[in-house]
Amino acid sequence: MPHITLNSDEPGIRGLLRFRPETGRPLSELAEVLLRGPGPLTRGERELIAAYVSGLNDCQYCSSSHSACAAAQLPGGMALVEQVRADAGNAPVPAKLKALLGIASAVQQGGLNVTAEDIAAARAAGATDLEIHDTVLIAAAFCMFNRYVDGLATIAPQDPARYAAGAQRLVMEGYLALPAEPRHED
Amino acid sequence: MPHITLNSDEPGIRGLLRFRPETGRPLSELAEVLLRGPGPLTRGERELIAAYVSGLNDCQYCSSSHSACAAAQLPGGMALVEQVRADAGNAPVPAKLKALLGIASAVQQGGLNVTAEDIAAARAAGATDLEIHDTVLIAAAFCMFNRYVDGLATIAPQDPARYAAGAQRLVMEGYLALPAEPRHED
Repeated sequence: MPHITLNSDEPGIRGLLRFRPETGRPLSELAEVLLRGPGPLTRGERELIAAYVSGLNDCQYCSSSHSACAAAQLPGGMALVEQVRADAGNAPVPAKLKALLGIASAVQQGGLNVTAEDIAAARAAGATDLEIHDTVLIAAAFCMFNRYVDGLATIAPQDPARYAAGAQRLVMEGYLALPAEPRHED
Repeated sequence: MPHITLNSDEPGIRGLLRFRPETGRPLSELAEVLLRGPGPLTRGERELIAAYVSGLNDCQYCSSSHSACAAAQLPGGMALVEQVRADAGNAPVPAKLKALLGIASAVQQGGLNVTAEDIAAARAAGATDLEIHDTVLIAAAFCMFNRYVDGLATIAPQDPARYAAGAQRLVMEGYLALPAEPRHED
């Protein structure tokens, strides 16, 4: 049960966005531009970084949701997402993405944990400044979203089908559609 | 030296907001609504939570900047801010604020670290659902901002006078004024 009384039964961050729309709006806009807006990383790669960091933070709602979003937008599907989350260092992803996941993992531990060597490894694998920037901000942002969702003890559904259906909606409509109208099917 | 080549010499998050205005805008909007928008906690209390969490994350730029903003808007000034940052449990703040700082500290460790006892203590001291919500989100947001600022190794000025001057500007103009125009005096 959530630590505070929400004004809907929506799970995870959805209930929080609806509870406090003043903060919900910039949070949704941040998710939209970070994960779907113009940028050098594909939407699938960005969702994979989000899912990976959310898993490191043990956030069940966010890791399930963004794993489903990544799986829906990456050629390797959920099998690849699960390999990355279980052992990113040995997952079958390109060297550049592997190096960016390494940076994301350091950010999850703390910003000061990102080393010049982490950055050099990403550059050697072909990462640009913008790709490094976006990776750091995605990882940092999910250290916020995860803490927001779990710090208020929101509900995380168990059924993977719920997350897969949610991912289809997010892939089609994006993150700005979320807090706009009640979704009583949830 | 920052890990990536920025397009200005601005320190801390200011340089990042200017480097990537697409993400800078929702980040600035989030800071504005969280720290200065309508809400049950005073602006000084909100900046204090931001400064406290930034200190726990060892983020020199953010802790200095938000300490200065808190000092400028709290009756106790910088002496109080420094007491809270050094030992929040024994600082001379009201019981409700002390309990909210306890929640913020738990969020900094991880969302799952917030216990029902932390919430009950805040409620017993008079905290509302909205105050608890805003505290959790401020603490979570600074776990993002701190990681963004330090994960890219941005520059943190040493001179406290720089932060005090910046705080005066933030108190007057808010966070939306930041990325709009070059500030060559920085």
